[in-house]
Amino acid sequence: MTDRTKIRTEVMVMFFDTDSGGVVHNIAYLRFIETARTLLALQLGMKFEDWHQSGIFPVVVRTEIDYRKPALPGETIVIKGQLSEVSGVRMWFDFEIIRPATGAVLVTCRQALAMVNTADGKPQRLPKDLGEMLNSRPE
Amino acid sequence: MTDRTKIRTEVMVMFFDTDSGGVVHNIAYLRFIETARTLLALQLGMKFEDWHQSGIFPVVVRTEIDYRKPALPGETIVIKGQLSEVSGVRMWFDFEIIRPATGAVLVTCRQALAMVNTADGKPQRLPKDLGEMLNSRPE
Amino acid sequence: MTDRTKIRTEVMVMFFDTDSGGVVHNIAYLRFIETARTLLALQLGMKFEDWHQSGIFPVVVRTEIDYRKPALPGETIVIKGQLSEVSGVRMWFDFEIIRPATGAVLVTCRQALAMVNTADGKPQRLPKDLGEMLNSRPE
Amino acid sequence: MTDRTKIRTEVMVMFFDTDSGGVVHNIAYLRFIETARTLLALQLGMKFEDWHQSGIFPVVVRTEIDYRKPALPGETIVIKGQLSEVSGVRMWFDFEIIRPATGAVLVTCRQALAMVNTADGKPQRLPKDLGEMLNSRPE
Repeated sequence: MTDRTKIRTEVMVMFFDTDSGGVVHNIAYLRFIETARTLLALQLGMKFEDWHQSGIFPVVVRTEIDYRKPALPGETIVIKGQLSEVSGVRMWFDFEIIRPATGAVLVTCRQALAMVNTADGKPQRLPKDLGEMLNSRPE
Repeated sequence: MTDRTKIRTEVMVMFFDTDSGGVVHNIAYLRFIETARTLLALQLGMKFEDWHQSGIFPVVVRTEIDYRKPALPGETIVIKGQLSEVSGVRMWFDFEIIRPATGAVLVTCRQALAMVNTADGKPQRLPKDLGEMLNSRPE
Repeated sequence: MTDRTKIRTEVMVMFFDTDSGGVVHNIAYLRFIETARTLLALQLGMKFEDWHQSGIFPVVVRTEIDYRKPALPGETIVIKGQLSEVSGVRMWFDFEIIRPATGAVLVTCRQALAMVNTADGKPQRLPKDLGEMLNSRPE
Repeated sequence: MTDRTKIRTEVMVMFFDTDSGGVVHNIAYLRFIETARTLLALQLGMKFEDWHQSGIFPVVVRTEIDYRKPALPGETIVIKGQLSEVSGVRMWFDFEIIRPATGAVLVTCRQALAMVNTADGKPQRLPKDLGEMLNSRPE
């Protein structure tokens, strides 16, 4: 049984992800993580159409990110993410970016998101089945 | 008398503008140009509020850009732009990116924009005073 | 037999690819195209390692891009690219971005690249087998 | 007397800073902060030329960022930054992004940087006068 609360994506590092220091720029990793997190949100049952129709969007309210080792131009890296906690109006996600050839952890990241109504900026109740998916997950 | 159809902006090249080839990445110049073009649009009397309230946005329909010499991390470069032609539903803009220390032309660019209603994708009539501003400009 | 001079990639449109006009931002398409073009360059036998070791990088010298219809947040679009011409020190590539559900062409783009020595900015001779791959291709 | 350990920059929000949710995208604020931090580094006596000649670059090792209120397309916001602590091989910086019209705090951010030799990935000793500048600052 697939665990819908976890995701694994891959990306090959492009020139536009790097800077003149020769390695991936710190901001680019957040795009990699955002792609993984968005695919995870879809997997959790959320939908782009619903977001735009309701005007209630997933909004990052906090990011903590640690940069441990740099990724190199042209290498393919793996982003592993999971929903870790649902607490009030916040969902917490954890991410690791890995060099699969060696298993080295390049980046770790933790993000809190809320579902926010853009009309008034107020956080909304989270989808009620999120907590259930989290509690019933294997392992 | 200031010519409202011309703009001049400056930007210091940041690491995130460069890539591991050591110079500014080709896509970053288009951000520099977009900032100049947006400031020029405001100078021409357009407004962010109007765009969002009407749902009629300035949309790039064509870009031609030639990369002649690379800009370097840390250097300050100048973007010169002007409204060049108003033709039917298209506005044409021309840009040059310059290294002010030597006058070297790093990039030249030509863009066509239309005012597009996002509800139906249809281009709208352009503000009527654009042509007048163009025809009455000094020089 | 696979034609090494052509590439087809897919991308799901993320929030960071869009802007407050509600559709994909004009600059984001150039990232999609750059990813396709880089994968095509690898397929043509070029290598990130060689670029960094030699200091001779593929450099975009001209882009022409036409924006026909906008891509939407959350949709998956297809980027089709091919090497079209090898002429002196320039390689020309053609791209189309397609909405696969309808076949609609969203964007067309033509780019010229050169192999440039970053030490002196001089374009180098192109790999000699590029022309052969182009001439011997099926179709 | 100017305090060299503090910086204040301004930016007008562009379309490419926003997303289809209608406000500034979470990643864009990190570009605003990076520009402020780089100008602060120059003010502290560091230099792009030195970084590239020595191969010792300022590297972000940790970012913590809280998103409180969104910035809007077209508005001009203020980024305030300061060097807050020098501890071992780490420099800590604090940032606030402000809406000057109301004084509202939109974003707060804390970043740790190290000076890293890209040849071996080792953090280097920090410029010796950083601590002095910090201790001798007014207020």
